[in-house]
Amino acid sequence: MKRFIGISILLFFCFNGFGQYSQYVNPFIGTTNFGTTNPGAIVPRGMVSVTPFNVSGSDINKYDKDARWWSTPYSWDNSYLTGFSHVNLSGVGCPELGVILLMPTTGKVNADHKQYGSVMKNQKATPGYYATNLEKYSIKAELSSTKRTGISRYTFPKGESNILLNLGLGLTNEVGAKVRIVNNKEIEGSRMTGTFCYNDGSERPVYFVARFSKPAKNFGVWKNMPKLQAEAAWSKTSGEYKYYDGFTREMFGNEIGAYFTFDTEENEQIIVEVGVSYVSIENARLNLKAESNDFDFEKTRAEAEKEWNDILGRVKVAGGTKDQKTIFYTALYHTQIHPNIINDVNGQYPAMESFEIKETNDCNRYTVFSLWDTYRNFHPLMALLYPQEQLDMVRSMVDMYKESGWLPKWELNSKETHVMEGDPSIPVIVDSYLRGLTDFDVEAAYAAMYKSATMEGKNNKLRPDIDHYLAEGYVPIEEEFDNSVSHALEYYIADWNLAQFAKALGKKADYQKFLNQSLGYKNYYSKEFGVLRPKLADGTFLKNFDPKQGENFEPCPGFHEGTSWQYTFCVPHDIKGLTKIMDGKKNFVSKLQKVFDEDLYDMANEPDIHYPFLFNYFKGEEWRTQKEVRRLVDEYYKNAPDGIPGNDDCGTLSAWIVYSMMGMYPVCPGDTDYALTSPVFDKITIELNQEFYPGKKLEIVTKKKNANDIYIKSIKRNGSNHSSYFINHDDLVKGGTIEFELKSSK
Amino acid sequence: MKRFIGISILLFFCFNGFGQYSQYVNPFIGTTNFGTTNPGAIVPRGMVSVTPFNVSGSDINKYDKDARWWSTPYSWDNSYLTGFSHVNLSGVGCPELGVILLMPTTGKVNADHKQYGSVMKNQKATPGYYATNLEKYSIKAELSSTKRTGISRYTFPKGESNILLNLGLGLTNEVGAKVRIVNNKEIEGSRMTGTFCYNDGSERPVYFVARFSKPAKNFGVWKNMPKLQAEAAWSKTSGEYKYYDGFTREMFGNEIGAYFTFDTEENEQIIVEVGVSYVSIENARLNLKAESNDFDFEKTRAEAEKEWNDILGRVKVAGGTKDQKTIFYTALYHTQIHPNIINDVNGQYPAMESFEIKETNDCNRYTVFSLWDTYRNFHPLMALLYPQEQLDMVRSMVDMYKESGWLPKWELNSKETHVMEGDPSIPVIVDSYLRGLTDFDVEAAYAAMYKSATMEGKNNKLRPDIDHYLAEGYVPIEEEFDNSVSHALEYYIADWNLAQFAKALGKKADYQKFLNQSLGYKNYYSKEFGVLRPKLADGTFLKNFDPKQGENFEPCPGFHEGTSWQYTFCVPHDIKGLTKIMDGKKNFVSKLQKVFDEDLYDMANEPDIHYPFLFNYFKGEEWRTQKEVRRLVDEYYKNAPDGIPGNDDCGTLSAWIVYSMMGMYPVCPGDTDYALTSPVFDKITIELNQEFYPGKKLEIVTKKKNANDIYIKSIKRNGSNHSSYFINHDDLVKGGTIEFELKSSK
Repeated sequence: MKRFIGISILLFFCFNGFGQYSQYVNPFIGTTNFGTTNPGAIVPRGMVSVTPFNVSGSDINKYDKDARWWSTPYSWDNSYLTGFSHVNLSGVGCPELGVILLMPTTGKVNADHKQYGSVMKNQKATPGYYATNLEKYSIKAELSSTKRTGISRYTFPKGESNILLNLGLGLTNEVGAKVRIVNNKEIEGSRMTGTFCYNDGSERPVYFVARFSKPAKNFGVWKNMPKLQAEAAWSKTSGEYKYYDGFTREMFGNEIGAYFTFDTEENEQIIVEVGVSYVSIENARLNLKAESNDFDFEKTRAEAEKEWNDILGRVKVAGGTKDQKTIFYTALYHTQIHPNIINDVNGQYPAMESFEIKETNDCNRYTVFSLWDTYRNFHPLMALLYPQEQLDMVRSMVDMYKESGWLPKWELNSKETHVMEGDPSIPVIVDSYLRGLTDFDVEAAYAAMYKSATMEGKNNKLRPDIDHYLAEGYVPIEEEFDNSVSHALEYYIADWNLAQFAKALGKKADYQKFLNQSLGYKNYYSKEFGVLRPKLADGTFLKNFDPKQGENFEPCPGFHEGTSWQYTFCVPHDIKGLTKIMDGKKNFVSKLQKVFDEDLYDMANEPDIHYPFLFNYFKGEEWRTQKEVRRLVDEYYKNAPDGIPGNDDCGTLSAWIVYSMMGMYPVCPGDTDYALTSPVFDKITIELNQEFYPGKKLEIVTKKKNANDIYIKSIKRNGSNHSSYFINHDDLVKGGTIEFELKSSK
Repeated sequence: MKRFIGISILLFFCFNGFGQYSQYVNPFIGTTNFGTTNPGAIVPRGMVSVTPFNVSGSDINKYDKDARWWSTPYSWDNSYLTGFSHVNLSGVGCPELGVILLMPTTGKVNADHKQYGSVMKNQKATPGYYATNLEKYSIKAELSSTKRTGISRYTFPKGESNILLNLGLGLTNEVGAKVRIVNNKEIEGSRMTGTFCYNDGSERPVYFVARFSKPAKNFGVWKNMPKLQAEAAWSKTSGEYKYYDGFTREMFGNEIGAYFTFDTEENEQIIVEVGVSYVSIENARLNLKAESNDFDFEKTRAEAEKEWNDILGRVKVAGGTKDQKTIFYTALYHTQIHPNIINDVNGQYPAMESFEIKETNDCNRYTVFSLWDTYRNFHPLMALLYPQEQLDMVRSMVDMYKESGWLPKWELNSKETHVMEGDPSIPVIVDSYLRGLTDFDVEAAYAAMYKSATMEGKNNKLRPDIDHYLAEGYVPIEEEFDNSVSHALEYYIADWNLAQFAKALGKKADYQKFLNQSLGYKNYYSKEFGVLRPKLADGTFLKNFDPKQGENFEPCPGFHEGTSWQYTFCVPHDIKGLTKIMDGKKNFVSKLQKVFDEDLYDMANEPDIHYPFLFNYFKGEEWRTQKEVRRLVDEYYKNAPDGIPGNDDCGTLSAWIVYSMMGMYPVCPGDTDYALTSPVFDKITIELNQEFYPGKKLEIVTKKKNANDIYIKSIKRNGSNHSSYFINHDDLVKGGTIEFELKSSK
């Protein structure tokens, strides 16, 4: 019998590929240095992640969510754990979610996270699995998840053990929850969320149902009571946590929770499964029923790992160091967190900007669109590697327009958060369309884009400052630290994409109109400084201008989160035109090189993320791209918690490194050409989705004599010379082989 | 047609008796001087009252609920109104309920009661109706109610008008609510309650559904957001009220509410009906549907008035001044607030001490039993005037035992609050039984009483200090300010009642056992001081004893809320025995007279409430009763807001004045004799409930030559001399005439 089990485990792992790709994922990458990723257990694009929450409640932590701007439930630098949150954002710059915290403890129930928290030891994380020991309690906590449920396995010592469900603590600054203990094995409730970026207006409840593998001996709810005035003299719980033993009605309040107490034997394991929904408690229960493995933690964990291996295995790399593989697959992993599904197993989801409940038609409804970031490279990468998912994302975006009247900008759980600027749905959708993902409501998409690109007045939700832009071709600076130039630059690239869309749809007049609009960036070009410069409404340039102002996130007139240098080349749709106003190739190239040489470049943010690939536009200068890209890859990305140079921005920096290590980059969304550079790996095999890209595999082979060879000697496609340093998406997805031969110097 | 309407209105008022009795009710009596009644609109024993809430939010108020011990939503001394609460307690000494506040305002919505409140002008209150003008907004607010619903009519000025539903503010110190806007005319939700006397442990949610007569133009919910730390720099709503416009999901939190905004014409009236339930929102909606008059405010008000006239008209008085009539009928009115029904229209109610839902069988389920107070006179009065209601109260109490294992002590909304001491259900139930209200589960009742009277150990929830009492016949003083003597005195009278019950049920041994127990009070009698005195466990008296200690609610060793003087005669079941240990009649009478002569008597609390009637036990001394009672009636009860000498204690002081003005008093519950004294009115007609007391009306006729005649010259019953100064309940309820002839001096 034992042998048989041994064999079936072996077979199982064979089937599972021995964690073939997931073994190269280090979920701790990006968990410090403001990468804001977290090591929580999640499956690809899961609604749920179960994430250690260690950013509150103790001075032993380096970072506290309440002591500074803070946007992640977890920091590698911290060690005081106060629970495992079940809905979380990864790689974002603003705090939100991080709620529905489970926490195992022992002894007398204590609901105060400042007291019940524990130091974490021996953390371990692989895709779909996280484990840590809670030093204070000698408890081992292991986490895994499915798309819409989280599963936790706690190994307790002998004695009285507790599982706390904390609905007060959260990364969000929204408050309010309800909870109801259904019976000694089940609990349900809801938690308010929605203060992304500390803003108001995107409030939405999240619902849950949790089940325990063992009936609780005792249970109850708690509330942190407000501090009373004179009445404090008579109240025992003024300003204290109050416990309502055996309370089985709904409890409401700002800081509430529930506790379940068990008698445990030494090493006894109790498992908790939590189903989540943004629609209702009933749907959370449906999700739990559909995805639960009946408290089989190992099965859930194995399924999660299999799912990850399937997804990561779409790209197979050979060669490179183990660290390089880990950097690559972890980045690919980080592109699979957001956007995530929001539809329940029955297809229901909350409609955009309303509380109406809609139902999906076969496809998934996605949420968490950080589009100012992700339009630049993330969505092209998804179109290449995961076209079905990308198509569903486009459909989701178009449906958001149908539901709310506007395409999204920074959408979170069916709410527009109005974070960052521009009209970034346009390049995402147009780029996908031009890459062949056309099976969506194209008419509606065009109408949506046309609306935001032409609607005058402040009621234009995506382009509130459109009037002067339409009249004069640029957005004038009107307040000291407005982001006028950044706004306009986003509109130009959106309009250029819209022009391409119009062209593809045979709308010639529109094409010309939006193409013209897209060239307005020239208004900002200052001959004097050789860079883009804010302009006043009267057409004069802003005085007291410093093109370096804006470094390190300091405020800067006209530019958002960056300097003029970091925006000046952010016209990827008209490099030719930009070259012309910069007085030709030589000046352009030397100026661009200066950005790298004089440390004007910011690898940690998006406006200049495509800069290193721009040398490819100039014959004979491509080696600069190969050099700078490889330098950035080696310098900024590491197999370590600080291995992402800054905020991952929902996978945008990760998409950059994935592309860069594969030797290609989509410089301009809407332009389906990839700039080519030297790949890091000897062989990269892309398993193209046969439904979208029928044909062969795509193999990228790199030959080099020396590990340090980074300069391209030659490129061959299917055995023939490929003279260009670009390759079109259409050619790429036909599959076949691209062969790079590298050399040691330019 | 018009004439017809005129006639039918006339007929209606005729039928209604022109407010025959309700015209003599002044709901403002008791609303200052810590009477703690309120002028809210309520029907007899209604679950709902709609009450002006004016004890928070402004320095212009004399009393603030948060600045001192405070137990009423309304004070006559205050003028800053912050809404109308829908569940309230009247005449209690501890804060609770006072939640679900509606408030009409105008202009921009402001949810902060410190800002939106208004000065009240022109208050008017009659039974079932309350009106006031809100000076700040030029709004007239009128309130009425049914058993389970409140109705409010607001007359607005022209412009933008609002109705706020505040679920944060409340008299209770429990917090937490949920609210959901169903549509532009309906809202539902729940509010946590349950910190009676600032204690924990009696938490229970109350549910509501509210409907508006006019659809709102705009609506939304709000929440008072917690103050953030560093994040306050970025949040616009840290520590502020946050508004969620158009929010239609459930909202939860500590201080939340909802607003509805309307465009109103000059003098436009908007009506709000609120259904309430302690079971569920569904039941609140059922209650609203069953009792609502479809926004017909006048009809609801007329029905409420009719109900009051029916109830008050069970006793008809003639003679006396208008003030005396008003004092009398207002007191009778105040006996009809609590206990109140808790069962919904479908019979459902929350079971005692659990969240199980039970269903009543035909009878009403009552709640709010302040039994330490009410057992003394209130329940005998109910047994006489409202036997069906009293029987249902007894049934409710026995059902509470069945549900929770214990009879109630201070029950509030199916939760035992453990306030005050003793075993007061015993005298209430036994007294009713002996007065002929026997149609309840007598076996269960006896078992319940036997349990608390005999169960040893601290798990005896009603008599936690029973062990020494059982062993030695008294409760020893064990802490400086414990209430040991007060505890024991309650046990003695309970045990005496239990003895009577045992006797009636033929349980002779039990009778003797409990009768013996009831005489243990003698342990406390101090020959040295001539009063009861705390005793230590070793049998010695407490040293440093001052029989006057405990005046004005100062703490006192052994006695609760009183002095030794105020407890020494609190042995109404054994006046004979007490007389004996006090060395005979002469000493007893002079000592009792001393209590009145030396201002040792407290008219405002219960332990000595029967003292003035004790002279009746001594032949030739009855004139002292007549003198002292009349003096107290004239001195302490007024037709004015300070017209109740202290806390009405759920109608106990009111029951005292009703009895006293009718010329009789039930000195000892369980002893069905009434002590007689001179009535205030010339004629009192009691319409005995024919189902319980078939036969004639009871008429009490008083003849006097002079208005100041207060001494009894003779008493006749049905024309024959009645030589005793007592009359038995059984004789009384046979009806007929009792005739007092009064004289001017003793």
